[in-house]
Amino acid sequence: MAEGIQRRRGYREGLGGELLAEFLGTFVLILLGCASVAVAVAGLPGSGRQSDAFGPANWLIISFGWGFGVVFGIYVAGGISGAHINPAVTLAFAVRRAFPWPKVVPYVVAQVVGAFVAAALVYSVYSWAIDAFNAKAGLPRNQSLDTFAIFATFPAKYFDGSWWGPLLDQIVGTAILVLLIFALIDTRNTAPAANLGPYLIGTVVIAIGLTFGPNAGYAINPARDFGPRLWTFLTGWGEIALPGTYQWFSNFFWIPIVGPLVGGVIGAIVYDLFIGQVVAARSAPPEPGRATDEATG
Amino acid sequence: MAEGIQRRRGYREGLGGELLAEFLGTFVLILLGCASVAVAVAGLPGSGRQSDAFGPANWLIISFGWGFGVVFGIYVAGGISGAHINPAVTLAFAVRRAFPWPKVVPYVVAQVVGAFVAAALVYSVYSWAIDAFNAKAGLPRNQSLDTFAIFATFPAKYFDGSWWGPLLDQIVGTAILVLLIFALIDTRNTAPAANLGPYLIGTVVIAIGLTFGPNAGYAINPARDFGPRLWTFLTGWGEIALPGTYQWFSNFFWIPIVGPLVGGVIGAIVYDLFIGQVVAARSAPPEPGRATDEATG
Amino acid sequence: MAEGIQRRRGYREGLGGELLAEFLGTFVLILLGCASVAVAVAGLPGSGRQSDAFGPANWLIISFGWGFGVVFGIYVAGGISGAHINPAVTLAFAVRRAFPWPKVVPYVVAQVVGAFVAAALVYSVYSWAIDAFNAKAGLPRNQSLDTFAIFATFPAKYFDGSWWGPLLDQIVGTAILVLLIFALIDTRNTAPAANLGPYLIGTVVIAIGLTFGPNAGYAINPARDFGPRLWTFLTGWGEIALPGTYQWFSNFFWIPIVGPLVGGVIGAIVYDLFIGQVVAARSAPPEPGRATDEATG
Amino acid sequence: MAEGIQRRRGYREGLGGELLAEFLGTFVLILLGCASVAVAVAGLPGSGRQSDAFGPANWLIISFGWGFGVVFGIYVAGGISGAHINPAVTLAFAVRRAFPWPKVVPYVVAQVVGAFVAAALVYSVYSWAIDAFNAKAGLPRNQSLDTFAIFATFPAKYFDGSWWGPLLDQIVGTAILVLLIFALIDTRNTAPAANLGPYLIGTVVIAIGLTFGPNAGYAINPARDFGPRLWTFLTGWGEIALPGTYQWFSNFFWIPIVGPLVGGVIGAIVYDLFIGQVVAARSAPPEPGRATDEATG
Repeated sequence: MAEGIQRRRGYREGLGGELLAEFLGTFVLILLGCASVAVAVAGLPGSGRQSDAFGPANWLIISFGWGFGVVFGIYVAGGISGAHINPAVTLAFAVRRAFPWPKVVPYVVAQVVGAFVAAALVYSVYSWAIDAFNAKAGLPRNQSLDTFAIFATFPAKYFDGSWWGPLLDQIVGTAILVLLIFALIDTRNTAPAANLGPYLIGTVVIAIGLTFGPNAGYAINPARDFGPRLWTFLTGWGEIALPGTYQWFSNFFWIPIVGPLVGGVIGAIVYDLFIGQVVAARSAPPEPGRATDEATG
Repeated sequence: MAEGIQRRRGYREGLGGELLAEFLGTFVLILLGCASVAVAVAGLPGSGRQSDAFGPANWLIISFGWGFGVVFGIYVAGGISGAHINPAVTLAFAVRRAFPWPKVVPYVVAQVVGAFVAAALVYSVYSWAIDAFNAKAGLPRNQSLDTFAIFATFPAKYFDGSWWGPLLDQIVGTAILVLLIFALIDTRNTAPAANLGPYLIGTVVIAIGLTFGPNAGYAINPARDFGPRLWTFLTGWGEIALPGTYQWFSNFFWIPIVGPLVGGVIGAIVYDLFIGQVVAARSAPPEPGRATDEATG
Repeated sequence: MAEGIQRRRGYREGLGGELLAEFLGTFVLILLGCASVAVAVAGLPGSGRQSDAFGPANWLIISFGWGFGVVFGIYVAGGISGAHINPAVTLAFAVRRAFPWPKVVPYVVAQVVGAFVAAALVYSVYSWAIDAFNAKAGLPRNQSLDTFAIFATFPAKYFDGSWWGPLLDQIVGTAILVLLIFALIDTRNTAPAANLGPYLIGTVVIAIGLTFGPNAGYAINPARDFGPRLWTFLTGWGEIALPGTYQWFSNFFWIPIVGPLVGGVIGAIVYDLFIGQVVAARSAPPEPGRATDEATG
Repeated sequence: MAEGIQRRRGYREGLGGELLAEFLGTFVLILLGCASVAVAVAGLPGSGRQSDAFGPANWLIISFGWGFGVVFGIYVAGGISGAHINPAVTLAFAVRRAFPWPKVVPYVVAQVVGAFVAAALVYSVYSWAIDAFNAKAGLPRNQSLDTFAIFATFPAKYFDGSWWGPLLDQIVGTAILVLLIFALIDTRNTAPAANLGPYLIGTVVIAIGLTFGPNAGYAINPARDFGPRLWTFLTGWGEIALPGTYQWFSNFFWIPIVGPLVGGVIGAIVYDLFIGQVVAARSAPPEPGRATDEATG
């Protein structure tokens, strides 16, 4: 710990430093993640045809983009804050791994702010592409679901208005995320060593994109969805941002908040029921330089 | 061992705990694997055109989906049960690595049950997408091979009814799987360290998908095929589920059971003939916290 | 150090050896990177249709190609020179990690020369494909932006002449590159061990390609762009090479030089502000055989 | 060494055991590699349209297929024989790393035989798909370049009969392969630890596929090309197999033999000139259980 304490002086000491790390880690996650959707929807020369924006090759770009966002978000923050970079992970750690409850709200705020600022930067870089896309499609921004999709999520048409389908999807997706994070940091199980936990946890998110992505956009992280959603609400996407109303759905925004929070806790409980709780080992503060065990996304 | 024994108390002690781990590991494998096919077939907006469901970009989604399923199934169960999550692996370990014969049937049952429950959950999340797909195609469920393919396997048309072709494919595919597992856990060869064995073993399954996948759906795992097949039989896919009868084939279901069991043993024997048997080192129980050597898929 | 000094005798001793390593590392980076674009644009049998050259599946080829170029460029040079293989990285290290200023210009020259020679070799191997492509398109070389794109970068049409858009893109892209390099080599954070830093740093470049690639070709490295650009200027691409003038833009060439140099320093400062400076540990010379910490791209 | 010697008794002792390992390692490489092309050309349901067989998404399947073939070929043989699984690597090791010359010819024979047998097995599994493909295309086997491509290589049309283009491509491709192998096993540089060298060396082959693949099929390995070529000659592909005569080329077969042998030595020399020779460390026999340094592909 000595070295870790030593490096965090002044404003970077204690909780303040952890919040800076959560901010920056979530910022990296959203910067790469949202920008990968921007590439698929509006960046590549062949884009602009609505039906192709989420074709299978683009879906690989999006899934790898979000997964790598998680990988590097964790590497940025892992040694300082444990790199939750996701309120659903923070909550699950508080419920099942003795993460201190008084830190929960500050962590969540830092995550949402990081996501919001990252969305703003993605917007700044991609505003030309977005405007060109909408001009070509002849749609005003507040009717352009494709460009909204760069920033936040919405349910697939086939749910046909059902809120239970997307909510179930978010619960399942986040449960598998947290269950696998718990497995990957459990040094009494088969946790990867050599500080490669972050790579594997990001790979979980690649996997979730490839397996549960299209149902509801796989937010699986309330900050990931709400921060950028707020940005789009403030910059012209109107009701499709907040409260999340489309042709086939109204009031979507709460689903990628409630679903992940519930699902994360369920995933944590399932791991502990089937494999075993290891709360004692978890209650120790992160150890800089050997932080794989704590690095979580 | 001390720690490992300590964590498994009550219902998680001994064989019971190992079966819970095999259940959960196989559950994770099937949850991610089947859902990746659901994405390709019915999830992505452009899907629904029969000829494209298994185009090359979708095939990458499916191959990575199943491979990551294996990666994380092993990380979940590796330190507890050795993470066979595949009856063909369990049998090969019993035949060539002194895995105790009395545990074989319980392990297999846990694997099949895990696969069945995972198929049920994939079905719950994707039932909207499946129904929309079939409505669009104008097919009742029991004629929809594409949506059946989300759950279980069938032979390519070009085999034209030959049972030997798909059976040979399953034998070869599973032989290469077990041969490579034996290589990747052989610490007297070049076994990856730092608990990265599970990542490499999952990569074997990505590779098999990209190389032997389209012939017969690369079950290479009796539990992976039979558990979800049983689920689809109970939920309306009828004869294409059991006994596996299509336009160009009848009675397929036994092939992804028998083929993998035979192929796995062959792969094990080939490794031992060419590289060398190391049964002594293998007969030791798994060591939690250093479980890479035993983690197998 | 003993071994390291021992191996570098004669012309490979001291700065000379480091420059040879920077040359060879950058050579490998550009050889693989440019050739991956050649495959997408002119190599594959289906290529030659302008609108498809940068479709999503080709974009995966290009992003992985450049990322693997970085991975292996670093593995080639990491133990000798620290494997900057990028003037923006060299500058950021000089500004924030005590890399000796007198070495900056020699390093940059070695990098640019390495990139130039690699472009020449890619040209030699792909001249048949390039000429066939241009013959098919009926374009003289100095109007063939697609074949120019094999070697150097240009801005997307949607910027519509704005120099600020592509410049911002280059600043953001390189800032995220250097920020993540600083995270990945910070042993007091969660730096990957087992000499896997180069793999992760190359993965950063895959990620940047998938997230910020199409805006301006993601040079994020002045040597990567200027070396091959010079080669194309000398071999017939004329004004689209230098000064970088297209239908919708004039004078592009300075953007992938200035943007990355500015962005790299910004990324370094952001890391140090949010996570913490560790200049002391950084000022030590690279240690051969344990070079991960210094391996950077 | 003790353990290694101990495990290799009887027919697996000494050179015999090394040849068995080279056989099996090359067998695995070719089995996965050729089968990945079979998937792209004739396996997937949408295949059969000539212009698409080598489209970009299929090219990803093929590049990953061959790369993973190398990864697992090395893991199978690494601890026993050093896993050259490529005559060009064996020759480069003999010329620059004191690999014993008397072993060169036996190693090469084992590699070619392994490749031949693997081609036979791929043929057995894919004969239905191949025949269906050719029936659909209305071509006899000896005019079906697409199905020949499953097994062996041919030059791109754009070389228009030039033998120098494909030969240069093979020299460059193999030079980069051996140069990077030399980097990745040089423990005085940044060689990956934790027995992950094989994974990185296989990734080199993925990278070469994505960057130099389409010119001449990236054999970069005489055994990889000649073994399966011989098989196709014996099973009906006639002159397009041997001597390798197509509409736009005659007598190709020697290029993927001579090119790689020359290129491999050049790559070795370039590494040693720029980075430094480390022959002393290399002359030691492989150490089972710590074999990463020797594992090469």
